[in-house]
Amino acid sequence: MAMAILSFNPTLSSPSSLSFLTKHPQRVPHFAFFPSAPTPHTSPSSLSLFPKRIMHNSPSSRDPHVTRTSALIDPDGGALAELVAPPSERDALRQETSTLPSISLKQIDLEWVHVLSEGWASPLRGFMRENEYLQCLHFNCLKMEDGSVVNMSLPIVLAITDREKEAIGANESVTLLGPSGSAVAILRRIEIYPHNKEERIARTWGCTAPGLPYVEEAITPAGNWLIGGDLQVIEPIKYNDGLDHYRLSPHQLRDEFDKREADAVFAFQLRNPVHNGHALLMNDTRRRLLEMGYKNPILLLHPLGGFVKADDVPLDVRMEQHKKVLEDGVLDPETTIVAIFPSPMHYAGPTEVQWHAKARINAGANFYIVGRDPAGMGHPTEKRDLYNPDHGKKVLSMAPGLEKLNILPFKVAAYDQVAKKMAFFEPSRSQDFLFISGTKMRNFAKSGENPPDGFMCPGGWKVLVDYYNSLQSEENVVKATVGA
Amino acid sequence: MAMAILSFNPTLSSPSSLSFLTKHPQRVPHFAFFPSAPTPHTSPSSLSLFPKRIMHNSPSSRDPHVTRTSALIDPDGGALAELVAPPSERDALRQETSTLPSISLKQIDLEWVHVLSEGWASPLRGFMRENEYLQCLHFNCLKMEDGSVVNMSLPIVLAITDREKEAIGANESVTLLGPSGSAVAILRRIEIYPHNKEERIARTWGCTAPGLPYVEEAITPAGNWLIGGDLQVIEPIKYNDGLDHYRLSPHQLRDEFDKREADAVFAFQLRNPVHNGHALLMNDTRRRLLEMGYKNPILLLHPLGGFVKADDVPLDVRMEQHKKVLEDGVLDPETTIVAIFPSPMHYAGPTEVQWHAKARINAGANFYIVGRDPAGMGHPTEKRDLYNPDHGKKVLSMAPGLEKLNILPFKVAAYDQVAKKMAFFEPSRSQDFLFISGTKMRNFAKSGENPPDGFMCPGGWKVLVDYYNSLQSEENVVKATVGA
Repeated sequence: MAMAILSFNPTLSSPSSLSFLTKHPQRVPHFAFFPSAPTPHTSPSSLSLFPKRIMHNSPSSRDPHVTRTSALIDPDGGALAELVAPPSERDALRQETSTLPSISLKQIDLEWVHVLSEGWASPLRGFMRENEYLQCLHFNCLKMEDGSVVNMSLPIVLAITDREKEAIGANESVTLLGPSGSAVAILRRIEIYPHNKEERIARTWGCTAPGLPYVEEAITPAGNWLIGGDLQVIEPIKYNDGLDHYRLSPHQLRDEFDKREADAVFAFQLRNPVHNGHALLMNDTRRRLLEMGYKNPILLLHPLGGFVKADDVPLDVRMEQHKKVLEDGVLDPETTIVAIFPSPMHYAGPTEVQWHAKARINAGANFYIVGRDPAGMGHPTEKRDLYNPDHGKKVLSMAPGLEKLNILPFKVAAYDQVAKKMAFFEPSRSQDFLFISGTKMRNFAKSGENPPDGFMCPGGWKVLVDYYNSLQSEENVVKATVGA
Repeated sequence: MAMAILSFNPTLSSPSSLSFLTKHPQRVPHFAFFPSAPTPHTSPSSLSLFPKRIMHNSPSSRDPHVTRTSALIDPDGGALAELVAPPSERDALRQETSTLPSISLKQIDLEWVHVLSEGWASPLRGFMRENEYLQCLHFNCLKMEDGSVVNMSLPIVLAITDREKEAIGANESVTLLGPSGSAVAILRRIEIYPHNKEERIARTWGCTAPGLPYVEEAITPAGNWLIGGDLQVIEPIKYNDGLDHYRLSPHQLRDEFDKREADAVFAFQLRNPVHNGHALLMNDTRRRLLEMGYKNPILLLHPLGGFVKADDVPLDVRMEQHKKVLEDGVLDPETTIVAIFPSPMHYAGPTEVQWHAKARINAGANFYIVGRDPAGMGHPTEKRDLYNPDHGKKVLSMAPGLEKLNILPFKVAAYDQVAKKMAFFEPSRSQDFLFISGTKMRNFAKSGENPPDGFMCPGGWKVLVDYYNSLQSEENVVKATVGA
């Protein structure tokens, strides 16, 4: 597959405003209609720098017979599967929940209920039944009734125990209880089928070695049955952690993109702090989209907000860091939306990156930036990467159901010691470049040592240093306590 | 998915001739042209007994703009990938082989060369390159240039060692040497990429436990690299084991089906002796196809001829047994072709059954009979089936690229102790039925005990008894030798 060659653009946009969209999630969005959206002026030379899939969903390619109120890409299956009951029905639902057998959700299960409820997994309308699960495991996609195919690479399933299965008996609906014990949703027209954990793990991760974080957290301790069905969620899922205003649903994001009159949306999935190499790439992507004729490409900076492994930087710290990156002007708040993607993390490499991309289609993104070794990690028991770092973008570029998404692979960015800034790595002068891995970055922050000038904006860096300082204080307290 | 309900038809066809097609593979086939093939008379009532996919490739549905010389289903990709060089080029090829670096094939590698050379894996034209391998592992299918999809569930790959990779260097072609040391083929425009065995095994079998027969035989001892490329085979692969006349290529099978004026071909994959339960199903399938309006459905009885695990019945014994089944009139030689499918066996359940079905499309079959737990086996380290026995037919019925194949799942046949014959199992009178597993059958044959009357034709049964007697004699010789 062709690599997009993204050269370095040293002129960062100078932000005219530091307002941070997600501070004001309550404001009523303005709907921006595109009854006759402009056709991008595409010059063949700029087009050739992108892989083949570029330019889908350009306004001119849209079906002229359908009245549209948005220039955005369609969700998978044609419409978002929004599964939260309207307020008028909630009391009746709450009453019904007490009449049904119940299942207790773990935190990750609740995150999946959240994901499903807002339509990130459209056209799924609930936890997978066996036919969906088998297609997902074997084909990474689902065939729709009309013969079309949507991508679906991660099993979105709910495990129950033998005892829970027995308690359900012949009931056709069950109540899902949140970790706090209150009713969250009803699952209807249920189907219960065996949870072959070994097969699920092997086919999802391509590995069954002990130590896969999601497996240890959510599969090994789970029950031997899976329960699928149609989900009806009583009210929007909230976490009350001070970050709910960042948790924009696909619907809310689409409204915001329309309000900003976006004619292209490019998504950047991340679970790490943003350094200037990331920013370089995002700004350069916008520049190229403008060159291609798009009038207003909007960046969706979209950190993952669900389960992550223990040594990843926690969500609240990352959100604070991202905020500083915009405040420091490294990314332009006028053309950037920062929001939380509520999915838990599998660390399943090429299989998971498809999920990350597919969910962003549902939120309106038609361009997806894929990094080196997306959703990868070290092998849990061997001294090597779990996945070949190139497989993520290769698999993504060939994945069924993602043809309408424009995939933008990027070259590795590293610290250019001559130019004293983050730049795309040039193999011809490899000695000039310094690779700063996540581990190295964390070690800098832990030891209070500054990274090279230009690696990260000072405001963002301070957030990390403060976080690791607080960790060390906590560790000292623990040590002192244990020693006492 | 709907199950085909196949009731028992006690009237077996009385064969008018016991001639066995594959005794005479040399005879020039008569081409039977179907310029205006008849449309089957389909009554809705008989149609409803079959699953939804029935009736594809009915003559009336074919493209009227293409001149056709056969009523048979098209091979995947439109044409068979036949990779054996014409006789006029063979000398030059042999000379070229001595100028190239070489790779030594194991027996299973040679079986794959055979499979590829005859177009069973069409549209593949050689061992998979990485893009094909990744699509196979993740999606069980390949996307063609025109956007269409063909099924491809098993990696057809060739492993090489570090030393072989080093010896190849920058060469673009390599010679493949058969197990005897003579040149078999040239692989051109090669691509070498890492062989992540753990990932390959996990994604193919859904299991990485030690003891998977194909893994132990062909993957664990293999090299750490895979080499893909375009295959040019010097001459047809022969085994000189007295069974080569059974090894009909897809091309030869298609010629034979055309010669017999087949308007439907139903394939039965097997690696076990044929008992009367199998025969019941095959005869009943033909009856139903006739009821649906097909004029001449032909059965392809298609035992697998490549690698099988140590306790399976060897190929020569199985072929002798199948021959007796036709000679005893249990299957009608006029409407049955017995041939060997040259693929090695993976025992990879739902993943492998797709390969078994897909390869038969290439040989001209448009109906495929799928049994309970196809390509399944016991878990290598746990006391359970490796796969859920229903998953094979479920996955097959949903597999991308197999939409044009009519899949016929069948109900379990067992020995009906009241009717004293093999019959489809009826849960309402389960106490009347006796299940005779492969193990039980082998134990009968080993001990010289006869199975219940009507379980298998006497001629076929004698073949098995003789085989197990010979095994016991051999064991006694070994024991005597060890004891001495």
